[in-house]
Amino acid sequence: MLGALLSVLNFVGIISFSISGSLKAFEKRLDLLGVLVLGFSTALAGGIIRDVMLGVFPPSNLRTISYPLLAILGSFLTIVFHKYIENLTKALLIADAIGLGTFTAIGSEIAVEHNLNVIGVAIISSVTAVGGGVIRDLLSNEIPIVLRKDFYATPTILGGLLFYPVYYVLGSGYSVLWTFVFVSTLRLIAIFRKWELPKVG
Amino acid sequence: MLGALLSVLNFVGIISFSISGSLKAFEKRLDLLGVLVLGFSTALAGGIIRDVMLGVFPPSNLRTISYPLLAILGSFLTIVFHKYIENLTKALLIADAIGLGTFTAIGSEIAVEHNLNVIGVAIISSVTAVGGGVIRDLLSNEIPIVLRKDFYATPTILGGLLFYPVYYVLGSGYSVLWTFVFVSTLRLIAIFRKWELPKVG
Amino acid sequence: MLGALLSVLNFVGIISFSISGSLKAFEKRLDLLGVLVLGFSTALAGGIIRDVMLGVFPPSNLRTISYPLLAILGSFLTIVFHKYIENLTKALLIADAIGLGTFTAIGSEIAVEHNLNVIGVAIISSVTAVGGGVIRDLLSNEIPIVLRKDFYATPTILGGLLFYPVYYVLGSGYSVLWTFVFVSTLRLIAIFRKWELPKVG
Repeated sequence: MLGALLSVLNFVGIISFSISGSLKAFEKRLDLLGVLVLGFSTALAGGIIRDVMLGVFPPSNLRTISYPLLAILGSFLTIVFHKYIENLTKALLIADAIGLGTFTAIGSEIAVEHNLNVIGVAIISSVTAVGGGVIRDLLSNEIPIVLRKDFYATPTILGGLLFYPVYYVLGSGYSVLWTFVFVSTLRLIAIFRKWELPKVG
Repeated sequence: MLGALLSVLNFVGIISFSISGSLKAFEKRLDLLGVLVLGFSTALAGGIIRDVMLGVFPPSNLRTISYPLLAILGSFLTIVFHKYIENLTKALLIADAIGLGTFTAIGSEIAVEHNLNVIGVAIISSVTAVGGGVIRDLLSNEIPIVLRKDFYATPTILGGLLFYPVYYVLGSGYSVLWTFVFVSTLRLIAIFRKWELPKVG
Repeated sequence: MLGALLSVLNFVGIISFSISGSLKAFEKRLDLLGVLVLGFSTALAGGIIRDVMLGVFPPSNLRTISYPLLAILGSFLTIVFHKYIENLTKALLIADAIGLGTFTAIGSEIAVEHNLNVIGVAIISSVTAVGGGVIRDLLSNEIPIVLRKDFYATPTILGGLLFYPVYYVLGSGYSVLWTFVFVSTLRLIAIFRKWELPKVG
């Protein structure tokens, strides 16, 4: 039941992250391959980096063929409908928040199963959730947006810190569920309230 | 026989990719270390990333001492002869196309041997062949050229998609050979015909 | 005895590298998360990349909780004292040179224990020592400074080349000790004498 829900949420996350990367390719006026590569990287690079850091081979985002196919689907949707996507901004932000929560929960669980300590779990959970967006921005020759503005990566770190004790007290199912709810809700509140971390310098 | 041919083609590829990276260091006015690092990265980083993604340790580009030595040779040739290299542009483009085909064929074979599905093979083959060039461009603070112009990464993806069925029908030798011929030829035709993928945005 | 000394030197290195990354976040006017991420990456990404390249899972910089805690401490020190840090420039340069030598020695030993050849050891030692700084500069959207100026990465490559024969003649303890002394001293002399590698282009 939770497994089936997670699969659906994961699909939502992959497609919405892929659209975010594909749109960046439009903004940067890349070519068709650039759209596919930025879509794929934004959706799947975080999970690949997580698996490579934990020694999971081959990475599940390469092993499970539906994941790259969903990323490619996100790029095609962007190519076909990019003129109408502006009207969808709110829907995309919600889908993105769902992806952020799902990826954080999945990444945290894999990290805990590899016996990482609580800080290691928080690092892996945020790498899983925002690593793809960082790669998207690096490939676009920009400072990653998560380092500059918004309250976007912070929920994924807090999510990993939350996951760890809940996992050891209530087990896998509850920790995955509550981490997802916590991260996605926090992200949506942050969008709604326009939260920003304080800047330095 | 095919093994010996592949070794020679691989050597051609490493040296020509290293020259491409070393020339970028000249363009960016880096120091001597920058020439060596960009030469090394362009020639060998794609294969290292491939091995790290598939769990091959240590990566063959570190294990086989002749590979980094050939990359260093490419940097030295560039330092000594960079004034004359403009006259060699055509020869370098041909050597680069040979490298592209060889790296695609080698990467595809390793991916298939790790039981990846056809999309995974195409991703690994293109990471092997163009990953080094992407690292070169990131280290040079530029959007990777493969995302912006030319018909350069596309043959490596098509090569991986071709390799997969040929491997399962005709075996390793034919799939390596035909993938190499297909990718290198397609790249040379693309240079000759000035093919570009359509731009977006 | 040497082990305890190395631990202390390693702690000095992690904190000083983290301060260097955190200061870069101030220079780039990032937010609080940016300070933490650049501090963490500069201090620990080199060791993580080394472990990922050698197949050590999970990477020791994630497994040992004191390492990320020290990196976070470096970021907090920077946030609180950044106005006074200019007066500490000399102390920071010395601490950085100690870190450079320690990371080179540790990285070389791990590479030798994984049976790498002498060039592989030099590559891994320099990835360990300067990889974090390269990630810091990439995340800051700059060409890595080690490719452009200073005599900074060169001692770490020379240190790896020195480590290899000393290890096989005199054993682990002497090779670690002398590599540390050699790299840190060479770096301090380079600062004092304002050494630069020749530029190209």
